[in-house]
Amino acid sequence: MKSEALILSIVGRSNSGKTTFMVKLIKELKLRGYRVATIKHSHHSLELDTEGKDSWWHTQAGADAVAVVSRATMGIIRRTTNEFPLPEIINTYLQDMDIILVEGYKTEAILKVEVFRTEVSTELVCKGDKNLLAVIGDKNPEISIPFFHIDDNVSSITDFLLSNLKKPS
Amino acid sequence: MKSEALILSIVGRSNSGKTTFMVKLIKELKLRGYRVATIKHSHHSLELDTEGKDSWWHTQAGADAVAVVSRATMGIIRRTTNEFPLPEIINTYLQDMDIILVEGYKTEAILKVEVFRTEVSTELVCKGDKNLLAVIGDKNPEISIPFFHIDDNVSSITDFLLSNLKKPS
Repeated sequence: MKSEALILSIVGRSNSGKTTFMVKLIKELKLRGYRVATIKHSHHSLELDTEGKDSWWHTQAGADAVAVVSRATMGIIRRTTNEFPLPEIINTYLQDMDIILVEGYKTEAILKVEVFRTEVSTELVCKGDKNLLAVIGDKNPEISIPFFHIDDNVSSITDFLLSNLKKPS
Repeated sequence: MKSEALILSIVGRSNSGKTTFMVKLIKELKLRGYRVATIKHSHHSLELDTEGKDSWWHTQAGADAVAVVSRATMGIIRRTTNEFPLPEIINTYLQDMDIILVEGYKTEAILKVEVFRTEVSTELVCKGDKNLLAVIGDKNPEISIPFFHIDDNVSSITDFLLSNLKKPS
């Protein structure tokens, strides 16, 4: 089954406020009743799991996948030889979601917003990227793309994003 | 697609040595070239993820699923209203595995071994369970089921288990 989720990538330099913005956006989308997932691309090999837990021991022993299931959550960690491609993650593991917010896939051809803080950098990461929908930051970079101030009501930013995200073809 | 994995549940009281045995078994199965997954049933709501990480903030904000992807691993945590049933986890998330070792599903109708240490208890957890294939422990409980000493070579236990695990019907 192919996912029909709307997909938005949140890009920006380290410390520009991506996580803060994502948290606001997730809360707003949940208030509106959407099923929301996030995918973070990390350069560290394992952000989940913790040394010393049973699941960690299983992974250390060589298990290809470890799952931990409780009443309220299901967690799974898979070892991969090659990085799982984004479409496979979405279609296999997140196919029941309405909206998927992605972080850190700067070069993928997916619609994006950039979080921009002049204190961190005066240059956009994705300037010129034709998939860049909007810039959200502390100062308008004056490019021909909609700008929202980081302190704007997240509701209006959400309206804009939802009306501009297209279903994947 | 339905998984064709062999499924074995490892049961036993707390502190009986389940994780130690599972680690030995995983290593042996990996030496033999199998793709191995583990599923642990936990009463704690979240064994994976760690407070303060981005994925944790996303979950706190209400995300239904968070995934963290790196070159060597893919981790995903899903919030669930009702506990994910074991067959759904296996068929959706682990369908490419050869062998799935399950811990903590004492009452499921799946083939089991019990790890048994007389220092912890003199009573088996799964005595009388018709799915109990063998007992692995420090002393033979003298029931009509094969017994392996916990210090036996894991290779002979593995041979026994592989020849007795049947494909799910």
